[in-house]
Amino acid sequence: MLLDKKGFIIDIDGVVGKSKTPIAEGVKAVKKLKEMGKKIIFVSNNSTRSRRILLERLRSFGLDVSEDEILVATYATARFIAREKPGARVFTTGERGLIEELELAGLKLVEYNEAEYLVVGSNRGINFELMTKALRACLRGTRYVATNPDRVFPSEDGPIPGTGMIIGALYWMTGKEPDVIVGKPSKVIMEEALKILGLKASEVAVVGDQIDVDVAAGKAIGAETVLVLTGVTTRENLQQMIERHGLEPDYVLDSLYSIFER
Amino acid sequence: MLLDKKGFIIDIDGVVGKSKTPIAEGVKAVKKLKEMGKKIIFVSNNSTRSRRILLERLRSFGLDVSEDEILVATYATARFIAREKPGARVFTTGERGLIEELELAGLKLVEYNEAEYLVVGSNRGINFELMTKALRACLRGTRYVATNPDRVFPSEDGPIPGTGMIIGALYWMTGKEPDVIVGKPSKVIMEEALKILGLKASEVAVVGDQIDVDVAAGKAIGAETVLVLTGVTTRENLQQMIERHGLEPDYVLDSLYSIFER
Repeated sequence: MLLDKKGFIIDIDGVVGKSKTPIAEGVKAVKKLKEMGKKIIFVSNNSTRSRRILLERLRSFGLDVSEDEILVATYATARFIAREKPGARVFTTGERGLIEELELAGLKLVEYNEAEYLVVGSNRGINFELMTKALRACLRGTRYVATNPDRVFPSEDGPIPGTGMIIGALYWMTGKEPDVIVGKPSKVIMEEALKILGLKASEVAVVGDQIDVDVAAGKAIGAETVLVLTGVTTRENLQQMIERHGLEPDYVLDSLYSIFER
Repeated sequence: MLLDKKGFIIDIDGVVGKSKTPIAEGVKAVKKLKEMGKKIIFVSNNSTRSRRILLERLRSFGLDVSEDEILVATYATARFIAREKPGARVFTTGERGLIEELELAGLKLVEYNEAEYLVVGSNRGINFELMTKALRACLRGTRYVATNPDRVFPSEDGPIPGTGMIIGALYWMTGKEPDVIVGKPSKVIMEEALKILGLKASEVAVVGDQIDVDVAAGKAIGAETVLVLTGVTTRENLQQMIERHGLEPDYVLDSLYSIFER
């Protein structure tokens, strides 16, 4: 039973909000889960923002959350590398939000030719020089970690490139893909979420609006998965999405609040 | 017999020069071919420079060439589109050299959402906004022409991204590859070269230092091909290159001057 779970790993966009607008049922449901004493953690593939900024957004939705209840790909990437090689020298394509998290984790930001890690994250200030450095790091065989695999991101005025733009460019030029991808659907960020919650996969449910991202991430750690229809997936395209991605969620709910109506 | 050919389509880098340094045998050979009354045309995949700049480089090697004897991917791209749709509205990722040639060919430079053609060429000033526009043009289904397919370009201080960086990024984000690639090994630029020479494929030889670029381009139009060993391909890696690319040149010469020693 879903409500027997001790913890919930929850996607932000399409579950509790759409960009800057809250989704009422999602927000109400999270409040109720917290009142019931459930542990919750929001997991986001965002590769440019720090936890603080996402926290402010969640609070603007009326959700009372703490830093421990949010796991962003920037932070998860920094934690992953710091655990694999404490104090490692890293070169990143990313912007301020990612750089901050890398530094906070005790990693040393260096030039590409001195780096032990190439960290690829989206950057709205991307340029030819940065791409040249990433290319050369890649060609040197530097261990290559990407914050998240998202190819295109829906912005308010239309689609914009995601971290996948850089991954694709490097792949086309060198034939190399990341050694590690941290963000969903990778299990790296999900295992980090479990660690923070202090729970096992069998004790949590993974909630999201995208089959290939959230449901896939839940399945990657062997947790039960909940697809909500308040975002990308709708009643209309549900069957098509399941077939396209070859993955079936354990539960399909109109909104996260339906969890209480089952 | 090679010297019976009426015309020669010649690669620049690795045949008559290496970056800014002339290759003596190559330069000497081209001079002699011209003295014999052979028609020659240099074909370059360069996507950022105008004909004028390459002309100056060839002249600095001591070669007396005219604008008609040089075909650059920028110019060939402009000619191709202008022939397919005179006066077409185009959006390009490219830089000054490409923009100049597009305008000279009577094409109209417009924003991505008004364009009939997306023209992808390398740009040392590439940025997030330009990539966003290219992404959106691609998603709209705009006819997509790339100047050349080169993934990485050898610069003086190391490898730098070629036009392939943008092609790869767009492919990763949208699943779309160019509708037309103009530069070698595509036959588009080679057919343009034949048109300018006023010759048939059987009347020319195609000369270059790269099997997958120059020899492949020659074979694409059914011309005889000459591989010279003054560039990327050497006596040592020749067999490996032939096997890797599955293409065999008709002639292999130590330098272009060996054409007179056969």
